Amino acid sequence: MNPKLDDLRRRLCEVGDLRAAACVLHWDQTTYMPPKGAVSRGRHIATLERLAHAAFTDAAIGTLLDDLQPHADSLPPEHPDAALIRVARRDYERDVRVPADFAAELEEHAAASYAAWIKARPANDFAAVRPVLERTLDLSRQLSNFTPNARHVADPLIDRQDPGMTASEISALFAELRARLVPLLRRIAAAGGNDDSAVRRHFPISAQRDFARRVVALMGFDFERGRIDDTAHPFMTTFASDDVRITVRADEHFLGEHLFSAMHEAGHALYELGVDPVFEGTPLGDGASNGMHESQSRLWENFVGRGRDFWEGQFAHLQATFPDQLGTVPLDDFYPAINYVQPSLIRTDADEVTYNLHVMLRFDLELQLLDGRLAVRDLPEAWRARYVSDLGVEPPDDRDGVLQDVHWFHGTVGGAFQGYTLGNLISAQVFAAARRALPDLPERIRRGDLATLLDWLRHSIYRHGRVFTAAELVQRVTGAPIGVDALMHHLSRKYGEIYGLD
Amino acid sequence: MNPKLDDLRRRLCEVGDLRAAACVLHWDQTTYMPPKGAVSRGRHIATLERLAHAAFTDAAIGTLLDDLQPHADSLPPEHPDAALIRVARRDYERDVRVPADFAAELEEHAAASYAAWIKARPANDFAAVRPVLERTLDLSRQLSNFTPNARHVADPLIDRQDPGMTASEISALFAELRARLVPLLRRIAAAGGNDDSAVRRHFPISAQRDFARRVVALMGFDFERGRIDDTAHPFMTTFASDDVRITVRADEHFLGEHLFSAMHEAGHALYELGVDPVFEGTPLGDGASNGMHESQSRLWENFVGRGRDFWEGQFAHLQATFPDQLGTVPLDDFYPAINYVQPSLIRTDADEVTYNLHVMLRFDLELQLLDGRLAVRDLPEAWRARYVSDLGVEPPDDRDGVLQDVHWFHGTVGGAFQGYTLGNLISAQVFAAARRALPDLPERIRRGDLATLLDWLRHSIYRHGRVFTAAELVQRVTGAPIGVDALMHHLSRKYGEIYGLD
Repeated sequence: MNPKLDDLRRRLCEVGDLRAAACVLHWDQTTYMPPKGAVSRGRHIATLERLAHAAFTDAAIGTLLDDLQPHADSLPPEHPDAALIRVARRDYERDVRVPADFAAELEEHAAASYAAWIKARPANDFAAVRPVLERTLDLSRQLSNFTPNARHVADPLIDRQDPGMTASEISALFAELRARLVPLLRRIAAAGGNDDSAVRRHFPISAQRDFARRVVALMGFDFERGRIDDTAHPFMTTFASDDVRITVRADEHFLGEHLFSAMHEAGHALYELGVDPVFEGTPLGDGASNGMHESQSRLWENFVGRGRDFWEGQFAHLQATFPDQLGTVPLDDFYPAINYVQPSLIRTDADEVTYNLHVMLRFDLELQLLDGRLAVRDLPEAWRARYVSDLGVEPPDDRDGVLQDVHWFHGTVGGAFQGYTLGNLISAQVFAAARRALPDLPERIRRGDLATLLDWLRHSIYRHGRVFTAAELVQRVTGAPIGVDALMHHLSRKYGEIYGLD
Repeated sequence: MNPKLDDLRRRLCEVGDLRAAACVLHWDQTTYMPPKGAVSRGRHIATLERLAHAAFTDAAIGTLLDDLQPHADSLPPEHPDAALIRVARRDYERDVRVPADFAAELEEHAAASYAAWIKARPANDFAAVRPVLERTLDLSRQLSNFTPNARHVADPLIDRQDPGMTASEISALFAELRARLVPLLRRIAAAGGNDDSAVRRHFPISAQRDFARRVVALMGFDFERGRIDDTAHPFMTTFASDDVRITVRADEHFLGEHLFSAMHEAGHALYELGVDPVFEGTPLGDGASNGMHESQSRLWENFVGRGRDFWEGQFAHLQATFPDQLGTVPLDDFYPAINYVQPSLIRTDADEVTYNLHVMLRFDLELQLLDGRLAVRDLPEAWRARYVSDLGVEPPDDRDGVLQDVHWFHGTVGGAFQGYTLGNLISAQVFAAARRALPDLPERIRRGDLATLLDWLRHSIYRHGRVFTAAELVQRVTGAPIGVDALMHHLSRKYGEIYGLD
């Protein structure tokens, strides 16, 4: 019908196919690849990404986008053609400014810094990665500078992960959240009287796996359209609208690890599986932003999986799976155990209350590094100081301090962390909206009916892919902008009950 | 040192990376992919192959090859530079003649005909695929016609799999083999008195798997550089010089299925893992031909794995693995059971004696189809007639007759089958040469020392990759051209003993 639109779609699909192939190669690398395959695998992925970048920044795409702009302008913004042209142009204008040589240099440095980090972390050797991180910071600033007129040097980097968001807007949200979270945490700590010993027993992994598959199926994950595999650092990756892969890990001495990582990654997967399949292979066939994506993993993990309603229906099944470990444990002990709050050193092990404190201090440190208020050499000390002031714990070393996360050592400094907390804020807002829209939702969840919630999320969020931004979606779905109230309301109420706060 | 050679290498490596990625996607498709991922996966692989074809047939590569010819001419032909330029030119001149549109049409037709075959085979419905196969034949002839001056229409198709071989040369070899094989088979059938009941008991698959892994490790397969996974139709695929994947299947009621398919595919893998790593990512980093590759899978499967010497050392381990099934079975019963000769309908189930009869009749039918002596509508009847005349069995239907193999329904008619029998011929010649070079080889195999054989094969064959053709390699290693004597000598001696022929 429109040959230029067809040509655009064909070219974008080629880019999408190359990126999907890179995802398959990366998934295999972290699940099944024999160890010595790593060197060639890095080259294969780099080649695919280089060709995808070259194909996407081809001048012909710019010309097509220019020629198609009048068509887009003639349509309502949520029309799929208009959205495709708008989102593709957004990505195109961002990527075309980055010279291919620079992109290749960044890619190469990311691989080298990852290799350095893999050695330095177990050796507790920040000095070994300091020059690498200084170079990362320099390259991150250069990458930012390709975008003209940024208010803060972090803004273009944030925008790559959470389109439309800025450092100043996020800083304001985070300042409010921290101001309300720290007192809550103090009250919980003062109350005490809880622990997670009920879920820290020996739980054979094959039984954990069976139970998690049952839960993930209950969530609506379709094993004809995806699968679950083991890996060291769990993630979700999408190869196609009908092929989404979850990866998880298990700890035979801790029930929470496998089950909640499976629910978390399945939440991401349900989002991807719910995107309108007509968007497949185009820039619209993805989640709206990092934060929006994380909101869905956290909604399923925390608002369903760590909720009392869910376990009212499922705890008997869990007890039947682990009769020796849980047969005599009452739900009243199990529910606090999976919601045990304890300030700790490691972000990925953190509970629902303290998690955002980990994220927000990283975000602040990123901004300070990028705008020059903090030097890389002073980072370990700044990290330690923030853990003491925000969480009340002091890292004994850099291994479990500033070296714990891969993010700064496998890409850029800037933009990698804010999505986690934006996701938590949005998850609370969206779940509250779902409860308003579905008055019997708690009862349905107690009955094990998660399909109603999934349908509502698909209809409200998932199907739209990238047609709307995260801010637009939150406004549409909840009637309010992204904010702190819903999360604080949820945390105060839930942990007020568990810890008997007044 | 030589910027044009560096540029050529860089371009060839990009092509190699795209093809390696396609191999990963195909491997995943047949091992782990959820069923509904198939449609998108086909598109991803087609995109990678299209881009690889376009990159390889870029005129710049032709110019580089022309410019580098004087360099190649100044070197001995086995010099890596000379070999690279020669082999790359050979492939380039073959592929550049095929228009991209035609290649895409062929690819699309292959996918469609595979989809048709997948339905038609279980339905025993040759009529459903007849028009598809007629189109395949037409496209195969067109593909052949892009090569000027072929003596037989099949020659360019054979040359793609077994470079340098021709229909007339292969027909002469096969005629001699059939003339000597059919009388041997008649004598074996007349002797009788053997069966495979000892290996047709219940063998739990996990124990089969453990035993096969032990054998494959004994062969020298390095699990740091490869792995074994399950699939429906076993194959080997190479992602890199340090990442080679074997796929196998198992039958809990037949011990031969898993073990010998693992040894077969591991033979292919040892070849790939033995290629000089400096050839990785270039056209030299592969086996010399289909036939040469198959010679190595068959050497390890038949000359080691179905040999008496191997089991003198390993049978006690097998008995310990399956004490209930094999504890009281003497080796004198086990060895004939794994070498039970019985004419049957299905090529992939055939024993060492009858296997080549299956292959050769397919090869003859391919030639007749291609040169017009046989029409597709008459193919099922021609197939039946050849099974009766060559193997003495009559297919009851097309499902286990002409529809049994995927080859004609997933590519071209022509070139797909001869490599199996060429491989058997070469395997016998190479193993005889190894025995001459390593006088204590039988004793070493009895001791479980397979490393000496592997080292000799690596040195004689594997390391060379595609530097030499199969014919050149056979001449270098055995002192003779590819011929029938070694295989017939082996079969007559081995099965003469087993069946008590005089």
